[in-house]
Amino acid sequence: MTTPATVVNVGADLFADAIADQAVAVTRVDWRPPMDGTDADLATLAADPLRRTANERALAAMLEVTATLVDVAPASELLGLEPGQFLHAGPPIAWERASGPLRGALMGGAALEGLVDDPEDAAALFESGTSVSLEPCHHRSTVGPMAGVVTPSMWMFVLEDAATGRRTFCSLNEGLGKVLRYGAYGPEVLTRLRWMRDVLGPLLQKAVRAVRDSGQGPVDVTGILTQMLQMGDEAHNRNRAGTLMLLRDLSPAMVTSGTGSADVAESLRFVGGNDHFFLNLAMPACKLALDAARGTEGSTMVVAMARNGTDFGIQTAGTGDEWFTGPAQLADGLFLGDYGPDDANPDIGDSAITETAGIGGFAMATAPAIVRLVGGSVPDALATTRRMHEITLGENPRWTVPVLEFQGVPSGIDVTRVCRTGILPQINTGMAGKQAGVGQVGAGLVTPPAEIFPKALARLAELARERAAR
Amino acid sequence: MTTPATVVNVGADLFADAIADQAVAVTRVDWRPPMDGTDADLATLAADPLRRTANERALAAMLEVTATLVDVAPASELLGLEPGQFLHAGPPIAWERASGPLRGALMGGAALEGLVDDPEDAAALFESGTSVSLEPCHHRSTVGPMAGVVTPSMWMFVLEDAATGRRTFCSLNEGLGKVLRYGAYGPEVLTRLRWMRDVLGPLLQKAVRAVRDSGQGPVDVTGILTQMLQMGDEAHNRNRAGTLMLLRDLSPAMVTSGTGSADVAESLRFVGGNDHFFLNLAMPACKLALDAARGTEGSTMVVAMARNGTDFGIQTAGTGDEWFTGPAQLADGLFLGDYGPDDANPDIGDSAITETAGIGGFAMATAPAIVRLVGGSVPDALATTRRMHEITLGENPRWTVPVLEFQGVPSGIDVTRVCRTGILPQINTGMAGKQAGVGQVGAGLVTPPAEIFPKALARLAELARERAAR
Repeated sequence: MTTPATVVNVGADLFADAIADQAVAVTRVDWRPPMDGTDADLATLAADPLRRTANERALAAMLEVTATLVDVAPASELLGLEPGQFLHAGPPIAWERASGPLRGALMGGAALEGLVDDPEDAAALFESGTSVSLEPCHHRSTVGPMAGVVTPSMWMFVLEDAATGRRTFCSLNEGLGKVLRYGAYGPEVLTRLRWMRDVLGPLLQKAVRAVRDSGQGPVDVTGILTQMLQMGDEAHNRNRAGTLMLLRDLSPAMVTSGTGSADVAESLRFVGGNDHFFLNLAMPACKLALDAARGTEGSTMVVAMARNGTDFGIQTAGTGDEWFTGPAQLADGLFLGDYGPDDANPDIGDSAITETAGIGGFAMATAPAIVRLVGGSVPDALATTRRMHEITLGENPRWTVPVLEFQGVPSGIDVTRVCRTGILPQINTGMAGKQAGVGQVGAGLVTPPAEIFPKALARLAELARERAAR
Repeated sequence: MTTPATVVNVGADLFADAIADQAVAVTRVDWRPPMDGTDADLATLAADPLRRTANERALAAMLEVTATLVDVAPASELLGLEPGQFLHAGPPIAWERASGPLRGALMGGAALEGLVDDPEDAAALFESGTSVSLEPCHHRSTVGPMAGVVTPSMWMFVLEDAATGRRTFCSLNEGLGKVLRYGAYGPEVLTRLRWMRDVLGPLLQKAVRAVRDSGQGPVDVTGILTQMLQMGDEAHNRNRAGTLMLLRDLSPAMVTSGTGSADVAESLRFVGGNDHFFLNLAMPACKLALDAARGTEGSTMVVAMARNGTDFGIQTAGTGDEWFTGPAQLADGLFLGDYGPDDANPDIGDSAITETAGIGGFAMATAPAIVRLVGGSVPDALATTRRMHEITLGENPRWTVPVLEFQGVPSGIDVTRVCRTGILPQINTGMAGKQAGVGQVGAGLVTPPAEIFPKALARLAELARERAAR
């Protein structure tokens, strides 16, 4: 069964050949019949004269975007968010169906805004629903990791596409452990958020504006992502190199901002001590790119994957703002301290926007050290990236994977390919405790619920039939 | 010749198997008879009762060292270097045999110290030899990249082994292009060196001392190297992540040092704009580790590889401070701008101390993006690390390569294994222009001259015979 003579002859090229073989092996091993009940819709879309060019345009539009960091300002100013208005991750949801970590983050957010003194009192406020409202981040050009709660006083990164002026937004990352986005709302959480509001946000605003208005120009977030992928970050659960490059680009302007040196030093320590700080720039950069593909009639490309802790939802380029939803899944991974699977909430957060854009779980091959955080093996990590090429429209020429001989990351999830192969997108994720107030309990690997892809496929096919009948 | 059924069955594990196969393939392809004339000496050393345990002790001593950054101060203070005394890279050499880039760096160094006004006038000074002296960095517990010239007024990093208090030293990195260590000595070179002397050095001293004396403790250089190897740096020609982590650790203390904010900002920009800044910490960290193995009677482990631009020299743990030298080779690689092979000087610098300690070229597998700088292919980079395990005594459990399933880097070059296999150590290197004053012309891959290993082997065998006769 072995061919040692061949092996010796091939020499150093064997490694590349083995990788190529691996892609073949993975395709065969993972091959399954199309998802149940999708044959007719797949046939309809295969015959749709719009689909091929629509997908080419959608992918090209996404790949053309360069995200730059142009401002930092409060959500009240940027989004017109008013007291009592709360943004959250994932598709729309009401308090009644909200999971523990989303409820915990909303309760903490209400206390941060002064709507209640004690976060515990906020539950009644949300149950009554009279003076508060919930809305997905995605509906306001925003993305939020984990619970993704945004309140009016939170400071947001502003990313802009240099060519079109389009913008997306994301809050500032709080770090790990007991933090609002994982559903914690204790005094230390609120103290940190107030310091971010009073010190970090205004300092970053001065620095980001100074860099933007200098000869250097605004921080090139897309360019940092390019570098990160050569530095062991997959930009979802590893953002260490990205965070350090952001500090490199902003720290001189922070120093000369006129802010007191103690506050500058504390801010440098805070950002430098949080390897995930850049996640909140990677996410809106991905959304900015994907939003360029929205509204492409006939395109079957996914433009958002998002979870609110109860539902997992996707949107596609060809179906406007409609969400296709199913139950969020539990991740399989590694747990912090004494926590175990019983403590974990189902999948939550807008951060799967990274996978939607071809990084995160899709780029695991470039960040093999990630397996120490999310579980799995190094060969699995390499195979995952290869497998994701089976369900995507193309590669990103800017975001490459050195160990795969600089192949571009798999980009543009195609609903028809997912339904035809049964291969689901792979997501690297943090795990929140299912009880409000707990915080992070682990990190792991998860996929969307399979049924949302046939749902989206059915709607895309329906639209194609309507076009054909016109 | 292919076995697709096997391939499909193996699935995701194939990748790991392929890597294992690759090591076998490489070993077989590269197998050669022992180096000419080494049979008798190899037999002597194989029978030496000291060798095995001596090598175990030498390797263990090297792997136990933790290098911490404890100070920054001028070479005059730290090394007692006096006006007219010059340190240089590699084994001992006089002006008459010195290559262009070493001469250029010495001329610039003489101007920096005020021995001459115009660097061009320094040649006469060195030719006369009356008021100047040359000495290898290695003879003063120091390492220097490329020309490695150290003068009394240059500020040096001080690394200390926490357990023993032993120290090593290295100058501050100037960046790339027209810089002294590549043999350039124009006005911009001297202006930069004076700014480093007057601004950067004193600021780093304040910050390094403040961090050292804080609860945080001194910067853990060995720990940063551990992280770098998970972030695409091989710590010889890629030091981007290391540089950024150093900035992360020092920048808060730089801000609160009492230094003016303009100087702090300029220093942050200078360090952040030079991806190679950390090289000058990686090198003395490697020397600190290797020096722990020096003077181990009976050990055939290499403790230094160093080049002065004319000669390549090695020292071993069992042969004291004796150098075994041969002609430095030309690197094979990629050139900057219009430069080509005819413009390059032979291999130069103490930076091969990184390979001696198991990183740099030995750890190319963890930094596949390096091939864009030094040439070669990604499969070659992976194969090189596997091949270096054939000539080393063991692995470093702290410095691991994620893509090789967290295998430790190949550590402790064994003179007997090099002679027995004919496999030469692989070095990643910068290339200096052969004319004094030119600066960097490229980067590439190079090996030591083969004959120095049989020379060292002969001396080790001679000592073993003397021991046997006692």
